[in-house]
Amino acid sequence: MRSLIDIKDLSVKELDELCKTACDIIKHPKKYAHACEGKKLATLFFEPSTRTRLSFTAAMMELGGNVLGFSEATSSSSAKGESVSDTCKVVSNFADIIAIRHPKDGAGLVAALAANVPVINAGDGMHAHPTQTLADLLTIYREKGGFNNLTIGMCGDLKYGRTVHSLTLAMSRYKNIKLVLISPKELKMPDYVINDIIKKNHMKYKEVTSLEDNIKDLDILYMTRIQRERFFDQKEYERLKNSYVLTVDKLKKAKKSLRILHPLPRVNEISVKVDDDPRAAYFRQTLNGKYIRMALILKLLALAKKNPKKEPLYDKKKVRYDLKCKNPRCISGIEQEHEHKFVPTNKKGEFKCIYCEQKH
Amino acid sequence: MRSLIDIKDLSVKELDELCKTACDIIKHPKKYAHACEGKKLATLFFEPSTRTRLSFTAAMMELGGNVLGFSEATSSSSAKGESVSDTCKVVSNFADIIAIRHPKDGAGLVAALAANVPVINAGDGMHAHPTQTLADLLTIYREKGGFNNLTIGMCGDLKYGRTVHSLTLAMSRYKNIKLVLISPKELKMPDYVINDIIKKNHMKYKEVTSLEDNIKDLDILYMTRIQRERFFDQKEYERLKNSYVLTVDKLKKAKKSLRILHPLPRVNEISVKVDDDPRAAYFRQTLNGKYIRMALILKLLALAKKNPKKEPLYDKKKVRYDLKCKNPRCISGIEQEHEHKFVPTNKKGEFKCIYCEQKH
Amino acid sequence: MRSLIDIKDLSVKELDELCKTACDIIKHPKKYAHACEGKKLATLFFEPSTRTRLSFTAAMMELGGNVLGFSEATSSSSAKGESVSDTCKVVSNFADIIAIRHPKDGAGLVAALAANVPVINAGDGMHAHPTQTLADLLTIYREKGGFNNLTIGMCGDLKYGRTVHSLTLAMSRYKNIKLVLISPKELKMPDYVINDIIKKNHMKYKEVTSLEDNIKDLDILYMTRIQRERFFDQKEYERLKNSYVLTVDKLKKAKKSLRILHPLPRVNEISVKVDDDPRAAYFRQTLNGKYIRMALILKLLALAKKNPKKEPLYDKKKVRYDLKCKNPRCISGIEQEHEHKFVPTNKKGEFKCIYCEQKH
Repeated sequence: MRSLIDIKDLSVKELDELCKTACDIIKHPKKYAHACEGKKLATLFFEPSTRTRLSFTAAMMELGGNVLGFSEATSSSSAKGESVSDTCKVVSNFADIIAIRHPKDGAGLVAALAANVPVINAGDGMHAHPTQTLADLLTIYREKGGFNNLTIGMCGDLKYGRTVHSLTLAMSRYKNIKLVLISPKELKMPDYVINDIIKKNHMKYKEVTSLEDNIKDLDILYMTRIQRERFFDQKEYERLKNSYVLTVDKLKKAKKSLRILHPLPRVNEISVKVDDDPRAAYFRQTLNGKYIRMALILKLLALAKKNPKKEPLYDKKKVRYDLKCKNPRCISGIEQEHEHKFVPTNKKGEFKCIYCEQKH
Repeated sequence: MRSLIDIKDLSVKELDELCKTACDIIKHPKKYAHACEGKKLATLFFEPSTRTRLSFTAAMMELGGNVLGFSEATSSSSAKGESVSDTCKVVSNFADIIAIRHPKDGAGLVAALAANVPVINAGDGMHAHPTQTLADLLTIYREKGGFNNLTIGMCGDLKYGRTVHSLTLAMSRYKNIKLVLISPKELKMPDYVINDIIKKNHMKYKEVTSLEDNIKDLDILYMTRIQRERFFDQKEYERLKNSYVLTVDKLKKAKKSLRILHPLPRVNEISVKVDDDPRAAYFRQTLNGKYIRMALILKLLALAKKNPKKEPLYDKKKVRYDLKCKNPRCISGIEQEHEHKFVPTNKKGEFKCIYCEQKH
Repeated sequence: MRSLIDIKDLSVKELDELCKTACDIIKHPKKYAHACEGKKLATLFFEPSTRTRLSFTAAMMELGGNVLGFSEATSSSSAKGESVSDTCKVVSNFADIIAIRHPKDGAGLVAALAANVPVINAGDGMHAHPTQTLADLLTIYREKGGFNNLTIGMCGDLKYGRTVHSLTLAMSRYKNIKLVLISPKELKMPDYVINDIIKKNHMKYKEVTSLEDNIKDLDILYMTRIQRERFFDQKEYERLKNSYVLTVDKLKKAKKSLRILHPLPRVNEISVKVDDDPRAAYFRQTLNGKYIRMALILKLLALAKKNPKKEPLYDKKKVRYDLKCKNPRCISGIEQEHEHKFVPTNKKGEFKCIYCEQKH
């Protein structure tokens, strides 16, 4: 039995298989219409996320399965002080697979450790949201025919944008990828992404501030929302939110083969007039999100059937209990009796929190 | 492909067909138990309305289909600033048909314009709520055997009561209808209903203030709730809320063949002691609401299958962009980059907002 | 047609049958996978209770049925002032069976009186929560092989803990039960439970304050949560909440055959380190909750099919209308035009409210 907490849990080969299964579902939907009959997906959404929740729900329904769950924390036992672990242990009795969304970094791992069924991380705070990245990848796969030899622009909030960090990580495993990182200085790609992913994997990249000047080179333009909730200073938000808006005018300079992606919801960073342009792939992207989730549910249920024993989620022998995670958004220290736990990273002498993966 | 935004979107013939389908469903439920197998209804409720939502849900389930959605805006992406248009474009990837409820006038049209699947307006602000009217009509049809030659009393809040305006419009297309409009002076039927519907269609009507004096003449008594949320002045609400309460005593003067309708929920405008009277048809009315929604879902899905192309929702050639809608509840001007749009009415020189239909 | 409002509505024989059906479901799940095909359960949760709601939902789904409803009052018509009675009358048109959760004592009876389908009380205020007791009983039945000859410890909040009162009542009908009531003085078992259930049925019992000193004698240890919401004085809560915490250390003194139950959610009254002990039965208890609810749904639907007429819920001939219920949590007096009603108890000259069962 396996869970999906982070996109890097999947090998390049597994990603390829998921994309192929998704494409087969698209071609032959009837073949899969009863694949999960009698199975139940629990959607445990401790914070609202309509799109993601409905995508999982539609995915399970199109596989012939049932869906139960909650859409925000006020409807859940957590309002009475229950831990994520306990909720997941209980829900393991009610469902065959769990999709969890939670505002705290590391909640996905906590859920997978507690549950007796496969867990899909549907977004845990700023940490990871692997099914969004899967949707992005299937869109690139279907729109471009593969993952190699692409110039990918990432535009907007690259500092807090979890989706672009994950996509960078995912693309770092393919060949001849060039990144064009387009953002205001205040929202540049963080150093650890530059150093630990981009440079380490010898990806070509440049950091620029103008969308207009750089759009002509791109095969993929990944737009992101400048999220109000990420800003402490609301004035700074107001000043920046209108930068980097994609308009019909700016799009005139782009290639015909450009494809525009966006994790949605958008506020105003893409003009609605762009929607009718065939290069706008962001609504197709949500459709791809449903199909790749179908493929993922099928895969995890098949693995669980084959071997009900849980694969280890971290190396228990290497855990250090003497370090404290200082990430205020991390779930460690909140769950009942959950110790802070750290494991070594690839860098000598460095350790990371097993939950939120922040380095010490 | 067609959507249902307003009751007047349906011809008299189509209404008749829907009523007949509903009656056939009532007689032969098993015949329809798998009619929507593999289909999904999305219930997008941006404001809570349990009865309507559960009615749609039960309807789809009794057709063998699945239901997904949300029951209030806090659980939806709109909390992150997403437009109704974008939500509906995305949800078109997850469902085969959409029922939308929204506090803003005109949200039904916005949804239908954006979605790639049929949209049913399940109530948009003060504008329209056509499936309530369909439930009313099926109740009249089943209780009275048809729509002609009826004296219909409408009692309570006729000023703000959206349901009585729509029912008046719907009944204006039948023969020999007499309306008895029973309300306090403060809550009289608005002039535009009197002039543009009642007088224009040469319906007989009278405006009175006493329920007790007029109940004896009625074939149908349509009671309405005096809604707290419609009043700016809460004292006025307190003074009026107990007027026009239907009691066992007042009912003694009515015909045996009278039928009492109410859109529900009621607060206290009908005594619960009236519930056991066979003339009380308001709980049967909610049952009829389910059946007519089943008929409607079947019809719209059949039309979409026959012709996936959307029928135009307004005459694009006649639109004026220079007028601004002044209705503070109207959705125009709220959605991203949605222009104010006006089209001509039947009255020469008059224009109405395409969303909320208010005249300029 | 019958409803389940309180655990004492079920005879010892009926309880036995339910446990046997549940065990048969566990052994032969496929036999029951389509038992409720085409049927709908409405989960009307006027206050959130994730575990109970999802348990009912999973139960109905595993029987092949559908589920609709709401998970909190803000999503329901009650926000517009609708009575529980009206909601249940309407929902009877949408579902074949209702599970209702409500903060007011007596709401279960109000629902059962109004609905035209069987009603299951899924918790009405402090009054009753019979399916929790059914889950407790099935757990005892499966872990211990029967209900007689057991020493049962009840620990924690025995004053406000509805579950322990109901379990006491249920166990009072079996042979040779010894109760060990473990609580701080402030949260002792109430006098009416001691007098009207324990003493009246000649059960052996003792009241003690130390968990550690008494754990060695127990066959069953029923732990309860000290609920913040039951305390007016938050300081008292803080002082008491850590009393009576079950730890691995205390457990060392217990029998190997002890079984630990807990209604969940827990806050910190059982250390998570106890979870891996085979004596910890509380997560299995939630699984049993699902199975016994499946058995109950089957039973009530079968009874409704056999005889659609409602069995009387109280003795109408013996009702007194002149007494007023003084329980501030009771639903009487809140519902539209619901009179206060009292019926005689077994004790001469004593009367109880038909809704909340408090004595006058």
